[in-house]
Parts: sequence; C-alpha cells; structure tokens
Amino acid sequence: MNAEIICVGNELLLGQVLNTNSYYISQRLAELGVEHFFQITVGDDQERLRDALIASLGRADIVITTGGLGPTVDDITTKVISEVTNRRLILRKKVLVEMTSYLQRMYKRTPPGSLRQAFLPSGSKCIKNWFGTAPGFIIKYRNKFIIALPGPPREMVPMMERYIIPFLRRKVKPRYVIKTKIIKIIGLPESQINHSIKKLFTLTGKTTLGIYAHLGEVELRITAKDKSEYKANIQIEKIRKKIYRRFGKRYIYGEDDETLEGIVGRFLSLRGKTVSFAESCTGGGLSDLVTNISGASEYFIESVIAYTNSSKIRRLGVPSELIKKYGAVSAEVAKAMARGIRITSGSNIGIGITGIAGPTGSTKTKPIGLVYIAISSGRKDFTGKFNFTGTRIEIKQQSIKAALNILRLYLLGYKDL
Amino acid sequence: MNAEIICVGNELLLGQVLNTNSYYISQRLAELGVEHFFQITVGDDQERLRDALIASLGRADIVITTGGLGPTVDDITTKVISEVTNRRLILRKKVLVEMTSYLQRMYKRTPPGSLRQAFLPSGSKCIKNWFGTAPGFIIKYRNKFIIALPGPPREMVPMMERYIIPFLRRKVKPRYVIKTKIIKIIGLPESQINHSIKKLFTLTGKTTLGIYAHLGEVELRITAKDKSEYKANIQIEKIRKKIYRRFGKRYIYGEDDETLEGIVGRFLSLRGKTVSFAESCTGGGLSDLVTNISGASEYFIESVIAYTNSSKIRRLGVPSELIKKYGAVSAEVAKAMARGIRITSGSNIGIGITGIAGPTGSTKTKPIGLVYIAISSGRKDFTGKFNFTGTRIEIKQQSIKAALNILRLYLLGYKDL
Repeated sequence: MNAEIICVGNELLLGQVLNTNSYYISQRLAELGVEHFFQITVGDDQERLRDALIASLGRADIVITTGGLGPTVDDITTKVISEVTNRRLILRKKVLVEMTSYLQRMYKRTPPGSLRQAFLPSGSKCIKNWFGTAPGFIIKYRNKFIIALPGPPREMVPMMERYIIPFLRRKVKPRYVIKTKIIKIIGLPESQINHSIKKLFTLTGKTTLGIYAHLGEVELRITAKDKSEYKANIQIEKIRKKIYRRFGKRYIYGEDDETLEGIVGRFLSLRGKTVSFAESCTGGGLSDLVTNISGASEYFIESVIAYTNSSKIRRLGVPSELIKKYGAVSAEVAKAMARGIRITSGSNIGIGITGIAGPTGSTKTKPIGLVYIAISSGRKDFTGKFNFTGTRIEIKQQSIKAALNILRLYLLGYKDL
Repeated sequence: MNAEIICVGNELLLGQVLNTNSYYISQRLAELGVEHFFQITVGDDQERLRDALIASLGRADIVITTGGLGPTVDDITTKVISEVTNRRLILRKKVLVEMTSYLQRMYKRTPPGSLRQAFLPSGSKCIKNWFGTAPGFIIKYRNKFIIALPGPPREMVPMMERYIIPFLRRKVKPRYVIKTKIIKIIGLPESQINHSIKKLFTLTGKTTLGIYAHLGEVELRITAKDKSEYKANIQIEKIRKKIYRRFGKRYIYGEDDETLEGIVGRFLSLRGKTVSFAESCTGGGLSDLVTNISGASEYFIESVIAYTNSSKIRRLGVPSELIKKYGAVSAEVAKAMARGIRITSGSNIGIGITGIAGPTGSTKTKPIGLVYIAISSGRKDFTGKFNFTGTRIEIKQQSIKAALNILRLYLLGYKDL
C-alpha cells in the first residue's frame, strides 16, 4: 500500500508559506509503514490540480490532499475531487449545523460564503474539523482512497491524529515498520557530539543515525526499518544504549516529544519544589515556556520581568549599590535577582537572568550575548556566565534554554552546574 | 518562462527533514518573475526521478533539482540527468582539485567515494559549492535548462544567491514582475473579512487577492503581476486603498513585515508612554513578545506573572475579597490586576490578563478559553471578555494578540475598545 501527498495552494508556490504539512504527514506515514514515493505541490488551479490528482491516483493507493477546502472561490479541491471521481456535491445537513454553530459561537454570525463548505462529494465520509469550518472527507474510488484535509496545520493535524491515522492503521497492512527515536542533548556543541559518535553513523543494515543541530541543543535521530515493530525497537535500543553510555543524563535531557520545560516541570512536581523567576533580558520568555506546560501552577509561583533598574530594586530587593558598582548585567546582580525572587515569592528556588540581548546596549567589556544566569535555593547558589551569538531573539532563546538546563541539573542533584 | 522544482531525497519522504529548499527557491522565483506551477518531491530512486524529470521537462522551461549530488550510491541525480539528457559523465579536473583541497582542509583526508562528485554531464556548466564538496551544474537541453543543486540549504542557498539568481536574471526576460503587499487585520473573523471583500477576489487581469487566517489575525495578500515594478505597484495601490476603505485603521494594524508588537512599541515610543503587564494565563508570553522588539526598554517597565492568588494580592494589590467573590478569572480581578500593575510599577498604562488556558481548570460557568483582558490608564478603564478555542498554547497566543490589540486601539485613541 502506498500513498501520495498533494499540497494545494498558490501561497506554497509563491514561497509565502513554508510547507510543514507534507513534513508532518510524511512522518506519520512512515510510522504507519505506508510507503510514499511522491509529494506534489500545486497552485489553486483546477486544471493542474486535476492533472496532479489523476497522475497520483494512477500510482498510489491513497492520495492525501491538503488545502483548498475553504469558503472562497480560490478553494477548488472539493470541486476537482468531485469531478475526477464523478460524484455530485451534496449538502450535508449535519456539517451545516455544526459549521453554523461553530461560526455563531466564534463570531456570532454565519457569512453566506461559508455554506459552500457544507457541500461534499456524494458517498464521501465527512471528517470533523475541530478548529475551523471546513470539514475534511474521505472518498473511496476504484479501490483507492482520496483523503482531503484543510491546509492550516492547526486544523489538519488534529484531524489526522484523531481520525485519519486510526483509519489508515485499519486499512494498511505494512510490509515493514519504520521506527524513529529522537535523543535530545543539551550543553555540548554539535561538533563535539558529532566527533564522539562518528563510528555510529556507519551503521550496518537498516538502522541510520542522524544529527540535527537546533538553537541551544542537538537532536540525534535513530531510524530503524524492520519487519516488525519489535525487531525495529531492538535495533533502536542497541544504538540508544550506546548513546546514553557516551553522554549520560548530564547531557541527555529527553527523548522524542519531551521538552526541556516539560522535563523540568515533572522534576519540580515530583520533588514538590516551587520556583519563581526574575527575568531581565529574556523578557518573560522563560516564564512563558514553563507555563506552556499544563499543570505548571503546581510548581510555578510567579515571575517578575524587571526590565528597569528600579524594578530590580523595588520588586526584587537588589541593592542599588550593586547595580552601581557592577552594572545591571553582572554575576552579582543575577545572583541578587535570583535570591530576591526566591525570598519575595516564597518559592523554594529562584532564578535570575540578566544579559544583553542586543542589537544595542553593548559596551567594551560587555558584548552582545553576554548573559548571567543565577539559581538560588537557600543552600549553595550558582551563577553561570554565557556568551551567546545570534540575533536578539536567538540570544533570548538560548538564555531561556540555558536557564532551564541549570534548573534541570540542579534538580538532578549535580553540584557543578 | 516557467520553472519547476524537484527535491530529491528519501529523508524528505520519511519526514526526517523539513523541506525549506522549495520554500526558499519559490520565493526567489517569484521575485524574479519566473512562473512556477508544480513542485515535486521524490526519493532516491532512479526510475521515479527519471519519470518526474521527464514530466517536468515536458511542462517547464527550467527545472531546478535539489539533493542527490553527494558521494554515496544513494545520490542519483547526476546520473539520472545525464541519462535523460543523453550526456556522458566526464571527470572535471578542476572540480577534483578543488574538492580534494576542500576535503583535506576540512577533514585531512579524501574518502574514495567522494571522487564520484567530480564527474559531471558533458556540456554542463559547473557551479562551485563553497560550503561542501558536491558541485552543482547547469545543462542546456532542447532550449530548456536543468539546474542541479545540492540538498543541504547551507550549500544550496549560497549557490543560488551567488550564481543561479544572476544566471536566471540574465536568461529570463521576465515578461512581468510580481509584487506582493500583505495587509494585516485583527479583530474580525476570516469569514466576515472574506465576505466583505468577496468582490475584490474576482479581480480583472493580473492582480490577485488571497486571504490567510492565522491564530488571532488574518492576512490579506495582494499580488500584482505586471510589465514593470511601477505598473505592478499601481495595481497594488488600487486594491490596497479599497481594503483600507473597507476596514480602516481600527482593523488593519500593519503591512508586510510589521508585527503587532512592533507597531504597539512604535506607538508607545512616539507618544512617550510606558507600559507594564500583569499576566496570569498568558504566563509571560505578552512580555516576551513585547521585548522581542529592540528598544523595548524605552517604554516597557516591568511585568508581574502572577500565577497564584497570593501573587496577585501581594504583588499587585488585588483585594483578596475580590478573588473570593468573583474568582481569579473574572472581569473584576483583571481590572484590579491592570490597575495594580500600573500603580505599583509607576507606568502610564497597565494591562491585566486572567483566564483559563486549559486543558484543566474549567468550571461550569467558566469554560476553557474564557479570558479577561483589562487596560488601565488612570482615565476610563476597559475590560474585554473573550472566548477562545484551541490548545493551551493557542489560547495563550490569542490572548496575547488580543491584549496587544487593545493596547493598540487605546493608543490610537479609540474609546470603544
């Protein structure tokens, strides 16, 4: 059984939107063991979409389209599919009711154009769109399936997860399984990781290892292709063990979908510790990330984003002499911020961050990217000095990751942060 | 003159790598006025690449391939192109010398397989790769051009910028220029905007209008295709005026690269006003976004991320009776938070946000997505009530945008926020 993906939209051809849909769907197909040889991107053009769809139906058992289901005249996918499969468009009352109630709830009105979206090809199975108005649908056509999904990822992804993937799992009898394991490393440069695992790259057989550098962290990706999930997992486990032996918990913070903020949140929760932040150059980004985790209110008390000296003094009790003597960007002030937020918030742990995110504000002795991060817990405190590079936003992001990693290492009991 | 892009690589089909190449090349082609109707992604498979290449050559004047030029047996693009165009592969001595010296410099050795990369189809023009070993090449074939580039963006992009774009600019006598203008709208649902500008969609001639919904805002994209930049700009200006007449400054917040936080920052700076935030459910995301703008320290004083009731009472002076009576998520508490942060920070303007980001924490009367946003300026205060949908992070993001928009409207002098 094999599939093809057709992404529809002028915005893709004009380079106005990055195509993350084909990336996401590819991953899911690979996990399901559905082979997949072509991806096509085509504009909002009926004739070209028709050509692409006919060609794909000639090659593949499953054709997944994204985009072109919306309310505007540009949205041509439903029409083209109904023509190619020779099915009439029929008004679905249930869709109409759901859509109207969604629009009323969100916007208190139903614009006339939106009704178009309630017409689906006859014989098609409607797929509910939880986060938008355009439903998706599946048509069986000559023993093949056409699956039409909306273009916006926040609408398409939940439809894939909740409906299409279970549907495909029932239909597909895969000849092999591809399993992937991602191992996430922080605190080591890519080149050093690369050097240290070079031998693992030349794996025999169907197992491969990839290395991907992100801002402030590195991802190792083990991919195993085997006849069963069990066999693929054995392959992965072998390599995984070798990687853990090389880097250990100090540098490996998580796997797969795990995030640094999620891991840190779990540690805080498990240990019954509370935390508060005093952020300057990160501007609230650390608090934002930590509160992305559901249940953060269990361990996160509060933050002060102290962008001015007066705020540092007034809210956090940083002595003004300290700022005068060492400057707002200094190890001393970071330490006083961490201590100040811990005491004034009544948390177990306080973190203070001060730095120069740029592009202005640097001095001869304090370059852009200089960031101090301090952790205070009432026992031994620690202050780290970092020299990040990149844009303002990249420096903020690296500072946030570094702060989370200091917190992680502290919670793991490391003494030398 | 029109082009197609063929991206080659199993890693793309397996969803291991996000395809940024087609995105980047699409943008460049659009700027050059080169039309472009299909993008194809295909694996490291000779037969399928051959089929795709032949199909593309049948439709397009220029075919750009990325990937498959490397040293391994998986790298098949050069071979397939040489077969399709019926050109022999010939050793290029210059390439060999450059490659060997590159490899020696970088890795102090020349792996045997790498020699393959010095063989290019006869009659092709070699394109130097500054950041890798595999050179690219251009072949003229039946009055069409095949341009083969390596897959890694850091190798491909410089080759495009330094060689391919100037080459295309010389070859392509664009019959037209494509100009794009983005108009950014906030505070109206997509369907209503769509309905209101429906007539504009059926534009005569070469001007098109697209509508793209993002989280909490909508983008209108005018694309004009005309003989000269001057003429294209006139087309754009016509539509632009119509859109402004329909929506006005109340709903149009910016154009092109402008961001809501950038606009708000500029207004604050121009009016010499300072602002501070009291965030609860947004968890610091509003402060984070505002401080992404360089120079934010001019107008942003501080924030308190008050995730607990005690923090709201202690840091912001919210009366505890208010929380008891109305609950932490209420218009009354939002208002008290806004007022509290304004007064305790000494800012001109205070904003308070409280809500239920979910997925837990809802009650019968207070569903997930219920968010109150208040603005306090010492004059007439305002509190807005919102019912957002989506994930925790999406609710946070919509709340942040709504708060920025309230601030924007306040700074523009609107009385009914």
